[in-house]
Amino acid sequence: MAPFITKFEPYEPEEYVVDKKSGTKSPARLEKIAIVGSGSWGTALARVAALNAAEREGFDPEVRIWVREHEVPGRGKLTEIFNQTHQNERYLPNVDLPENLVAVPSLKETVRNATLILIVVPHQYLPSILEELKEPGLISSRARAISAIKGVEVVIQKDGPTADIHTYPSVIEKELGIPCSALGGANIALDVGRGEFCETTIGVPSAKDAALWHAVFDGPSFRVHPIEDVAGVSLSGALKNVVALAAGFVDGMGLGGNTKAAILRIGLLEMSTFTLEFFPGSSPLTFSHHSAGVADLITTSFGGRNRKCAEAFIKSKPEYSGESKPDSGKSFEQLEKELLNGQKLQGTLTSREVFEFLEARGRLEGYPLFEKVYRISFEEMDPKRLFEDL
Amino acid sequence: MAPFITKFEPYEPEEYVVDKKSGTKSPARLEKIAIVGSGSWGTALARVAALNAAEREGFDPEVRIWVREHEVPGRGKLTEIFNQTHQNERYLPNVDLPENLVAVPSLKETVRNATLILIVVPHQYLPSILEELKEPGLISSRARAISAIKGVEVVIQKDGPTADIHTYPSVIEKELGIPCSALGGANIALDVGRGEFCETTIGVPSAKDAALWHAVFDGPSFRVHPIEDVAGVSLSGALKNVVALAAGFVDGMGLGGNTKAAILRIGLLEMSTFTLEFFPGSSPLTFSHHSAGVADLITTSFGGRNRKCAEAFIKSKPEYSGESKPDSGKSFEQLEKELLNGQKLQGTLTSREVFEFLEARGRLEGYPLFEKVYRISFEEMDPKRLFEDL
Repeated sequence: MAPFITKFEPYEPEEYVVDKKSGTKSPARLEKIAIVGSGSWGTALARVAALNAAEREGFDPEVRIWVREHEVPGRGKLTEIFNQTHQNERYLPNVDLPENLVAVPSLKETVRNATLILIVVPHQYLPSILEELKEPGLISSRARAISAIKGVEVVIQKDGPTADIHTYPSVIEKELGIPCSALGGANIALDVGRGEFCETTIGVPSAKDAALWHAVFDGPSFRVHPIEDVAGVSLSGALKNVVALAAGFVDGMGLGGNTKAAILRIGLLEMSTFTLEFFPGSSPLTFSHHSAGVADLITTSFGGRNRKCAEAFIKSKPEYSGESKPDSGKSFEQLEKELLNGQKLQGTLTSREVFEFLEARGRLEGYPLFEKVYRISFEEMDPKRLFEDL
Repeated sequence: MAPFITKFEPYEPEEYVVDKKSGTKSPARLEKIAIVGSGSWGTALARVAALNAAEREGFDPEVRIWVREHEVPGRGKLTEIFNQTHQNERYLPNVDLPENLVAVPSLKETVRNATLILIVVPHQYLPSILEELKEPGLISSRARAISAIKGVEVVIQKDGPTADIHTYPSVIEKELGIPCSALGGANIALDVGRGEFCETTIGVPSAKDAALWHAVFDGPSFRVHPIEDVAGVSLSGALKNVVALAAGFVDGMGLGGNTKAAILRIGLLEMSTFTLEFFPGSSPLTFSHHSAGVADLITTSFGGRNRKCAEAFIKSKPEYSGESKPDSGKSFEQLEKELLNGQKLQGTLTSREVFEFLEARGRLEGYPLFEKVYRISFEEMDPKRLFEDL
């Protein structure tokens, strides 16, 4: 195992109080978990956290999850259905959730008094969420956050042009003033929901964060490895979706396993090189050795939604569909609506942001795969050109 | 790209002779390629080599491939069919082979006068082949070999007990007295046969070997990267088949992509750790960065024959087949016969050899995945225990 795995003592409550009458000892305060986001990945992680919170000393068993309220025709309010059926029917169907996982319609009530906040929302929604969470006094100064958001924040300075790039944990840390870790994959939500054996890497700023988040998520079939590379874990989660689009293009063109494996290998190197170039404190081992790197890339490129839409994107082109069509293929926007049942595609957004960032920095030539994925997705480049200059 | 990629000048003939009459210059001698082995992978590589030999200056265009003779009922001799149809119908169906690739029934005639010899046979056949090739004067002392054999040679000393392990390139080098390189994957033969984009890593003992083997195999859709790690490339090709069996067990149990990706990640680390422990001159980058490592493992674990038989092995067990059967599952021997059309399964043999080696050395506890694959394959261990102690 990689040497930079974070060493930590297993979590224990820091202080106890003793009941004078009975002499029983109990933790002086409880850790309280809140989940911001109830898509498929958020719900799968919430299930794991709630199962642990119910069993571990020092945790408030009630775990709150923010569910945007709406009326389900003929059945009532969505949060009420969630709390009665203990299922998230839309995003994680057929998975029973623990009863101590409670859907809350108000974002503020979800996080109030929480000490451990998981943020897992499509990255386009983060700014408005942070705006609401910044209300003075809402979030305790001893709270900690962890981000499972797949994406990066790119800011283009139009008068340069130059560009800045930030990971979401650093954005959250700055906006909320609390430490923020990063939770990586591998992450096909439904498999996690079913309790199948899998691993996840968390990037943590300190050993204390490692102990707490390990206690929240680790279990016999969900193995958590904390490492000291918040930026690497966060970047890997964002960039792997760009490579998964390339994998989907390979599938769409009907090419075989060797070609796909070559694209994954080259993609993993670009992910690692990009991260080390722009976040020099990161480690290449995050990509080559850890679940958030190589394993998450594999699972996403064979089973994820970015791969699926990218395959459909190529197959919708007349030259690959096997039938002549009057239209010249579907856009990713159309496919997202048709295939994802309301979920958002992260890879295309990240692809555009990474492209614009590299272009502004004059560094496109270092990343031929990232460049091609963007041009095939948005500039009608012939997908066969994916393999040029690799 | 990894820094230990071998630097070499592109191949050029060392000497030329000038025709006095016409003044035209031609190479003083020609490199001559021989292929020992005509299974699917051997034939796919022979196709690539023959296409290059026909076009490159300094190469004899005739490439000989050893095909074991037998009578095809109603159609005549196999080598004659091969040389008339320019197809290897049994092992690489529907792929047209170049006319300068010539099937030869005699092993000795295949390699006579050859300067570049590719050996690509199931590893159980190698000893008898080397015995025949050792005939004095048969193989030129300026010849070079390259091994695409997937396996390792393990010698158990019964009176220790201790054990030795050797890679096939080192065995070939010792037995034939010529330098031997290693050719790795990614290697689904049919995809290579169809000319789809893929990569391969070759481990070479010198820059001269790098230049020659690059000239033999490299092309626009078959990218060859030489690295200075013969043992690492050879070991990766052997050990990845053991991990692919584990991947097949995951598929057979009906588990999802996260689980499979976790097994691949852990397997890749065991492959790398094993190689560095017993072949300390090797590089971990061979596994983490190069096609022969991570990419070959991915392609083999999703598309190869070891994965396929391992999935069938689990599904033949009554508890996974969905039907009650009187027998208690099929052995790998049975499945090899039923599913592989005469091809040999390398992973189970390697699994047994690696297990016996680690047991004799008292090092089983360092390799829990390798140990479990053996015990599930040969000792009726419950496949669910694959995930214990990982």
